Amino acid sequence: VTGLTILPIEGIPEVREGDDLAALLQGAAEVEEGDIVVVAQKVVSKAEGRVVQIDDVVASERAKELAADHDPRELEVILGEAVRIVRARPPLVIAETRHGFVCASAGVDHSNAAGLGTVVLLPVDPDESARRLHERLGVAVIVSDSFGRPFRQGTTDVAIGVSGLTPLLDLRGVHDAAGYELRTTTIAVADEIAAAAELVMGKTAGIPAVIVRGLDLRGEGSARDLVMPAERDLFR
Amino acid sequence: VTGLTILPIEGIPEVREGDDLAALLQGAAEVEEGDIVVVAQKVVSKAEGRVVQIDDVVASERAKELAADHDPRELEVILGEAVRIVRARPPLVIAETRHGFVCASAGVDHSNAAGLGTVVLLPVDPDESARRLHERLGVAVIVSDSFGRPFRQGTTDVAIGVSGLTPLLDLRGVHDAAGYELRTTTIAVADEIAAAAELVMGKTAGIPAVIVRGLDLRGEGSARDLVMPAERDLFR
Repeated sequence: VTGLTILPIEGIPEVREGDDLAALLQGAAEVEEGDIVVVAQKVVSKAEGRVVQIDDVVASERAKELAADHDPRELEVILGEAVRIVRARPPLVIAETRHGFVCASAGVDHSNAAGLGTVVLLPVDPDESARRLHERLGVAVIVSDSFGRPFRQGTTDVAIGVSGLTPLLDLRGVHDAAGYELRTTTIAVADEIAAAAELVMGKTAGIPAVIVRGLDLRGEGSARDLVMPAERDLFR
Repeated sequence: VTGLTILPIEGIPEVREGDDLAALLQGAAEVEEGDIVVVAQKVVSKAEGRVVQIDDVVASERAKELAADHDPRELEVILGEAVRIVRARPPLVIAETRHGFVCASAGVDHSNAAGLGTVVLLPVDPDESARRLHERLGVAVIVSDSFGRPFRQGTTDVAIGVSGLTPLLDLRGVHDAAGYELRTTTIAVADEIAAAAELVMGKTAGIPAVIVRGLDLRGEGSARDLVMPAERDLFR
């Protein structure tokens, strides 16, 4: 049994709207068959122009209520990205995005934006973003983002876009050595891969993508598979 | 920048109560300075004798109510490990353990137990379990377990015991290239390491521990740091 290696993709310049992200990744990394490339959501969003100038935003009354001492225009952008407010403690808002993700600020991020006075939104369709990169790079692709979670402190990276791999490993019906059906029925491997990738992205500034080598999970699926269906969600 | 490597620790036999887990790990792996050893909770619990014979358990009325078509004696064990039932949809119970973890079945597991008719409980003090292994192995140790999470499908491994490393990387006050304070204030690196480790443990049967090499996060802290304090928990 060999292990797993996570290699940083270095030398990607600051990404701007319209940049050919696949070409930038191809120029910086040599992928091998079975590799998985994990790309941080921020660079995907920037390449796709999902950046809002905060000066162009007019805050509604609702945004002002939720903003507390924060910039209400940022809350206005968050409200625009949200289909449902799950929890709010101004200025903290946990919202469901149109993709079905439940996360802080509906995924709107004011860090690492291309200059001050801007916020970055999630891609319109992160699975489609992953699919386009997968097609160009020839290996499985995960678009990752940092999400908080109930009950535990700190964020971990999760998969918000997936192409070319199975995001959930289904062990239902698999029996362990003692003959028991495994309690852990499904493992969110795409989220575990995103988390592992963050460790390498976070080690050094300016690493927006990594190669995960040594796991072959080629298959079908999308990041929507990772979203708990409403009818099964005990925390809705 | 070099990457991160995760190496399986192979050749660990089936662990039983009273086994010297540190000696088993030392016999199977050569650790280097700065390594992190991740050990699956199941083998830690088994070595510590945290195994219950289900025939020794008498189910209470409450356990019978929660069991639906499952074995009420198993629910009785779960109730014994729980300080609070967070959600229940019989026979599924999400509970808070005395360590403060919120997880399915209060961490009680009937898979991979040492023979049929047994269930495995979480260690009494997983941080102390990690501390003892850390002392013997001379490197940082994480005890990991598979937890489900609200809003997302599938489990990811998280850290339930930590010794010799900082489980949360605090980025508050750190500014990014554009001058903004990073929104992601704290990264749960110990959980990301546990998740990364699971990818290698899960690849092959019988890999209860791995070495994570290439991240030096030596420091202080415990898995309790990863538990969201009640007063900050929007989902309590």
